[in-house]
Amino acid sequence: MKKLALGLDFGTNSVRSLIVDLATGEELATFVSDYPSGEAGILLDPKDPNVARQNPADYHIGLVESVRNALALAGQNHPDFDPTRIIGIGVDTTGSSPMPVDSEGTPLGMKPEFKENLNAMVWLWKDHSSFAESIQITSLAQKMRPEYLAKIGGTYSSEWFWSKILHSKNTSPEVFQAAASFVEICDYIPALLTGDTRPEKIQRSVCAAGHKAMYHAGWGGLPDKEFLAALDPQLAELRDRLYETAYPSDHLAGHLSPGWAEKLGLEPGIAVAVGAFDAHMGGVGAGVSEGTLVKILGTSTCDIMVSPKQVGFADIPGVCGIVDGSVLPDYLGIEAGQSAVGDIFLWFVHQLTPDKYGRTVDEKFKNLGIEASRQKPGEHGLLALDWNNGNRTILVDVRLSGLLLGQTLHTQAHEIYRALIEATAFGALTIVNRIEEHGVAVKEVVNCGGLASKNPFLMQIYADILGRPMKVSRSDQTPALGAAMFGAVAAGPEASGFVNLEAAQAAMTGIKEIFKPDMTNHKVYQEIYRLYRQLHDAFGTEEWSGTMFNVMKDLIVIREQQRDLR
Amino acid sequence: MKKLALGLDFGTNSVRSLIVDLATGEELATFVSDYPSGEAGILLDPKDPNVARQNPADYHIGLVESVRNALALAGQNHPDFDPTRIIGIGVDTTGSSPMPVDSEGTPLGMKPEFKENLNAMVWLWKDHSSFAESIQITSLAQKMRPEYLAKIGGTYSSEWFWSKILHSKNTSPEVFQAAASFVEICDYIPALLTGDTRPEKIQRSVCAAGHKAMYHAGWGGLPDKEFLAALDPQLAELRDRLYETAYPSDHLAGHLSPGWAEKLGLEPGIAVAVGAFDAHMGGVGAGVSEGTLVKILGTSTCDIMVSPKQVGFADIPGVCGIVDGSVLPDYLGIEAGQSAVGDIFLWFVHQLTPDKYGRTVDEKFKNLGIEASRQKPGEHGLLALDWNNGNRTILVDVRLSGLLLGQTLHTQAHEIYRALIEATAFGALTIVNRIEEHGVAVKEVVNCGGLASKNPFLMQIYADILGRPMKVSRSDQTPALGAAMFGAVAAGPEASGFVNLEAAQAAMTGIKEIFKPDMTNHKVYQEIYRLYRQLHDAFGTEEWSGTMFNVMKDLIVIREQQRDLR
Repeated sequence: MKKLALGLDFGTNSVRSLIVDLATGEELATFVSDYPSGEAGILLDPKDPNVARQNPADYHIGLVESVRNALALAGQNHPDFDPTRIIGIGVDTTGSSPMPVDSEGTPLGMKPEFKENLNAMVWLWKDHSSFAESIQITSLAQKMRPEYLAKIGGTYSSEWFWSKILHSKNTSPEVFQAAASFVEICDYIPALLTGDTRPEKIQRSVCAAGHKAMYHAGWGGLPDKEFLAALDPQLAELRDRLYETAYPSDHLAGHLSPGWAEKLGLEPGIAVAVGAFDAHMGGVGAGVSEGTLVKILGTSTCDIMVSPKQVGFADIPGVCGIVDGSVLPDYLGIEAGQSAVGDIFLWFVHQLTPDKYGRTVDEKFKNLGIEASRQKPGEHGLLALDWNNGNRTILVDVRLSGLLLGQTLHTQAHEIYRALIEATAFGALTIVNRIEEHGVAVKEVVNCGGLASKNPFLMQIYADILGRPMKVSRSDQTPALGAAMFGAVAAGPEASGFVNLEAAQAAMTGIKEIFKPDMTNHKVYQEIYRLYRQLHDAFGTEEWSGTMFNVMKDLIVIREQQRDLR
Repeated sequence: MKKLALGLDFGTNSVRSLIVDLATGEELATFVSDYPSGEAGILLDPKDPNVARQNPADYHIGLVESVRNALALAGQNHPDFDPTRIIGIGVDTTGSSPMPVDSEGTPLGMKPEFKENLNAMVWLWKDHSSFAESIQITSLAQKMRPEYLAKIGGTYSSEWFWSKILHSKNTSPEVFQAAASFVEICDYIPALLTGDTRPEKIQRSVCAAGHKAMYHAGWGGLPDKEFLAALDPQLAELRDRLYETAYPSDHLAGHLSPGWAEKLGLEPGIAVAVGAFDAHMGGVGAGVSEGTLVKILGTSTCDIMVSPKQVGFADIPGVCGIVDGSVLPDYLGIEAGQSAVGDIFLWFVHQLTPDKYGRTVDEKFKNLGIEASRQKPGEHGLLALDWNNGNRTILVDVRLSGLLLGQTLHTQAHEIYRALIEATAFGALTIVNRIEEHGVAVKEVVNCGGLASKNPFLMQIYADILGRPMKVSRSDQTPALGAAMFGAVAAGPEASGFVNLEAAQAAMTGIKEIFKPDMTNHKVYQEIYRLYRQLHDAFGTEEWSGTMFNVMKDLIVIREQQRDLR
């Protein structure tokens, strides 16, 4: 008899449901449901590009629609499909994406009195409104609690829990006063499914808690009250209404409630695992293990590694998150990432690509790629920084911006598209170098996410720039697959047949394609990377001092070499 | 009885004929004829963005078409129009745009054996192929003849006569061997009209000769043979086949030949003035005088001033051309400029503006301008360098490139369009500052050219950034008007009624509009200009050394202030 699990992946623009076979990893059905609110699911403020919120009601709608459709599709595709064989449900979401809730756990943004208040909504991971608060938290921690910063790369981000809550308190006291607690959506959804969203009952995810909420068992969980009071006395009071303990995602959050079972068309009582962030579960679904770096390439990028706990582990400057059990329960999880990758390409296609490349976004991407792939490295003479949404790793600084140089009067859109892809690859190389410089060997790179499976041109550039093979995960939906695996393991070894996550990985993950580096291209890219690092360090670090006169000239020399003009 | 003159303006993409009334400056008729060859009249090399050539046959075609049509239009618009009242013809062209000719003065590019050879064509002003030769010439002059560099801002450009000829000799010896001489097109066209193009008979323009050919009466005309031989012995030999003396454009080149009179539909014997470059004659047509800076705003920009000869005149570093008589015969002419202005906007509209702004180039420009004009200075958070075609003044360096920074995931095309306009205005301000720092007061700025008359949004940004009123010349075609004025003056005071150019300017030039600076905007732009200069000096000068960390952050602060977020 087949055993199945259900993975739910709450992304930036949509929610995905995936039904998977535990014996083989075969994906029986998947369905993606777009969030109905805002622009592609994101609530924006036209005056302030920092604002990115989400309507919590969208999760309810997307949950029902995606699960019901996935079940229906599984039935159509597999006549022997039996939904009662689903033994576990796992949930991953974006994060840090906290929202205020009342004492019943109802999101304030779903209550009539707050329906029009952006600050009562979910503060999406990429919301950067709270940069001032992130600076305040960082500088206070430098003075009072330097240990808090050691695990998060030295800088507390505006994308994270406390920055967002403090900014909400500063700008919307009415929302803060009405909030019984604040809940990450990766904690809210499992609680919702088990039928009890009361804040004090929610099983919080250690993946979300540390480092985003500066949770660490070593200092007794969340930051202490003295520290929080120095930020704001009301944050210290809020601490009592948050949580003491956080759990890895092989832990059981509870069982599917009868009410939600009926809404979704499932049996009540199915095991529901503690939630986690999409990248962490995606890392597991892509087969992360010691020495394997998993890159989840989407609108933004996460880089996931694990390191054994027993090894004395040096903190890595600029690498945001090193958290016990955040990826695999028995390892330290290491998380790095780029604030925008696919989002930069989407921006370029929407805002700056003329219709001669096609009428639709898909056509434009296709033709930009075809034209750009005809060029040699450096032939366009361009160099970009991948900072349109700030830099998460290794600078941890949202107050940075995009940069493009080298353009002539003949530069074409597909050349800029290629330069933007290259910029994100240079950013990726910078992360790998930083991790290796601090003693964690990267023996293998496995890629997953939409860009990895759909953009071979991009993957080849990544291989050429990193000078390493780029492997592509067999599954196109590793976060949902990872979530399903956690759901299965949380159901227990008797139900799932897996003693731990590693056993599930052995059965359910694999590699489908390998892009090998062209070492001739790699050599050219090494020259260009030297210039990328020069711009990176000059615009991104306070310490840098030097000259810039070589940059444009060196790029022109490379351009002429690659065009056979020299 | 009305007295008339004909001005012929050979531009980058087309030739314009203008018939004008000497008493009032009234423009009776004008006709623009596009060059038939290449892309918009320019012969390109898809592999090398440095190459920009022109087919000399296009001048013959455009000359006949534009004059005949202008005459026909004048007859339609003015029933009393009498072509025999035309007493003088003046000619302006782009430059330095030299071409090889045979001993009869026939352009090699019009001969069957060279018809397919790009190197036998006209080397258009903006051709940058000969950057290596320009460096060679500059460094030799630094050692052997530093006085040659003093008048041209310290650097000999790849856009100029000797760089182009030396590159032609190095890369196409067969063309160089076949060339009896090399002729600027501003010298070729008047010779053509007088019926004698033999190189030794052509009256060469002092405007073209100095500084582009390093001609100066103080050192005996063209560079001496010892210097040329140190570059290449064949250049020293060529000197004998060039010229000893060059003339200002109030000088008579000759009279219209019967053959060309018939082709054009004019009387033979009309006075033809010595030619000059478009910017210099445009400066005269816009009313240049002591203290008045004339900006000719087109695909590139020229800034023209004059200074009395009797005043001891310090050379201005980075200002390319200070030539006796190149603008007004009795003054030193000062020429500065930006290598690309309108060309940058054209590039942006053609390559990077999506069709949501309109289907045609004109619609796109219109809607980009409407959207961009709704913003406050700095609201877009962007900063660009106007170097897509290198920097002529004050860096005199073609091996520079465009730069854009500050872009987020929300940056829109019209915001970049505004940033590009601002970049060109910052470049313009840099030129004004440099001229004033060296003792030439700029009391008034008069703008002319297509952008001045057609783009009020751009003119207002220029006023706000320069912090000065921007006046707009009454005529929309000042180079052709200036050319007509030189044609009239060359015909002599009896025929024209003008004792000199100043008398013609008093009768024929004027101001039609003044854009006043908004000093609130100017204050914001002063902050942004500080950042522009930081980028300008960092990427554009060898001497600069410092930090860059403030640039993106300061722009974000200004953006937030201007969006009322701070």
